[in-house]
Amino acid sequence: MKDKPNTFTIGIDLGGTNLKCGVVDDNGDVVADRFLSLPPDKSPDVVLKLIAQQVKWLRARVNGSVLSIGFGVPGLVNFQKGIVYRSPNLPKWRNVPIKRMLEKMCKLPVAMDNDANFYAIGEQKFGAGRGHKNMVLLTLGTGIGGGIILNGEVFHGDEGFAGEVGHIVVEPDGRRCGCGSRGCFEQYAASHAFGGADPSEIARAALEGKKGAMKIWTQFGKYLGIGIATLLNTLGVETFVIGGGITRAWRLFYGTAKRTALSHTYPYHRDKLIIKRALLGDRAGIMGSAAIARTIIR
Amino acid sequence: MKDKPNTFTIGIDLGGTNLKCGVVDDNGDVVADRFLSLPPDKSPDVVLKLIAQQVKWLRARVNGSVLSIGFGVPGLVNFQKGIVYRSPNLPKWRNVPIKRMLEKMCKLPVAMDNDANFYAIGEQKFGAGRGHKNMVLLTLGTGIGGGIILNGEVFHGDEGFAGEVGHIVVEPDGRRCGCGSRGCFEQYAASHAFGGADPSEIARAALEGKKGAMKIWTQFGKYLGIGIATLLNTLGVETFVIGGGITRAWRLFYGTAKRTALSHTYPYHRDKLIIKRALLGDRAGIMGSAAIARTIIR
Repeated sequence: MKDKPNTFTIGIDLGGTNLKCGVVDDNGDVVADRFLSLPPDKSPDVVLKLIAQQVKWLRARVNGSVLSIGFGVPGLVNFQKGIVYRSPNLPKWRNVPIKRMLEKMCKLPVAMDNDANFYAIGEQKFGAGRGHKNMVLLTLGTGIGGGIILNGEVFHGDEGFAGEVGHIVVEPDGRRCGCGSRGCFEQYAASHAFGGADPSEIARAALEGKKGAMKIWTQFGKYLGIGIATLLNTLGVETFVIGGGITRAWRLFYGTAKRTALSHTYPYHRDKLIIKRALLGDRAGIMGSAAIARTIIR
Repeated sequence: MKDKPNTFTIGIDLGGTNLKCGVVDDNGDVVADRFLSLPPDKSPDVVLKLIAQQVKWLRARVNGSVLSIGFGVPGLVNFQKGIVYRSPNLPKWRNVPIKRMLEKMCKLPVAMDNDANFYAIGEQKFGAGRGHKNMVLLTLGTGIGGGIILNGEVFHGDEGFAGEVGHIVVEPDGRRCGCGSRGCFEQYAASHAFGGADPSEIARAALEGKKGAMKIWTQFGKYLGIGIATLLNTLGVETFVIGGGITRAWRLFYGTAKRTALSHTYPYHRDKLIIKRALLGDRAGIMGSAAIARTIIR
């Protein structure tokens, strides 16, 4: 029995092809949620209208007041101004003042950030990163998203673009990347690494003992470990939480990743380096963004 | 004319072969300093005795009270406990409680940190990093030292070992490094890159137009740029200050480094990335450590 009134916040996790949203209580529990595919027209107006409908739907699910919205967007986000500068998977989202637009539509304050940053907050507060004040989250998907948590908070850097770890250079003259550069981490330790093949099929083949497939996963693990070592050496952060669909093949790459990371860092980290699978799956972004939404209201 | 009494702090910058120390006033100005070579026996006892003598000498140079000492040591330092875990260039400095020892010898409070962290604070407060609350300092010497300044303070990571940027992996199967790993940044963008040759001779040859020498510097700049890009993508920090003797050859590698860094980062950084030469030279470590020494007293 609580004395204070029930209050809720809404978390929205936008991807390149789908939308996840939920309403979360003051314990951080998801009370109701909904996952949708995006329509072919992914312009800001269309997507924001869809989001406003979900917000309405979610507000009707709870018996109490919804205070604010947390909204994670894939791409370069100025979290202070609430502007999306660029989103590789949502090409029409360029220099759009999304926060202001959504606040107007929903009449609620909105906290915005890069989706991986909210995902990281979710895992740090409620998932695999619990108890670690410093943590790096990597989401292995089409690319690699990164969220850096220092002292329990998202680290943003000069303009909010810290954690663009997918573009750490792991092979100086390596494969071309969508960013225009070469040899980026996400070309080697995300689904790009499978050269168009389906990672789950390569996983099946590896589990059946097919040498070629096993080698692909070993390479994958090696590059993941190299990226982790570079992050550890730079940030001195020893806890890494790895999310994304590819983690279903965890045992095909985890060992190599950890060995490689350790072989590229000082022995001091040997007993301290933690590489963990994310725990919250699809709900990490909702939970993290709803948690941050709670911090912007007084 | 000042009302308050003059107070001073002492800054000590220990290297693998020499010792720099100075006494600094409350404006951050170095009032007196002294540079010495280390004796062949670099055990903690011998070196600390030498330092205590310098402290005595420096205290006699000023007309006012010396409040504390800042002491920068190359290697892995637990800045909170004041323990040096390991120093590749001072092999006898292993798990030694240096802070406690020096405090006992000098009867003054001591602030300890990795030398590059103090160097970074010096450049950020008084040198090339002035006005940049986020900054990465790289010292290119035998290896590469790194100091990461976030929000005006040294970022230490979980155990104080953040900024070990010399061991960022720039070539996955590259050259062996003293750390036991392969392909470390410092094998490619520090004096190691010259394969035993004297960098200043390679610089002279390049300035005379010798193709082979020019190519070496281009490679050097390329790897420096790759390391900077990785740091920028990770930390979102856009200001890099580069120190160390090799920066005398600045114009032989700066252009390539900047072009390479930009080609491996998002275009957003194009107008914002700053790569600067350090300004304070030999005194950055003294000034930075003396400045931090002032923060530990009340």
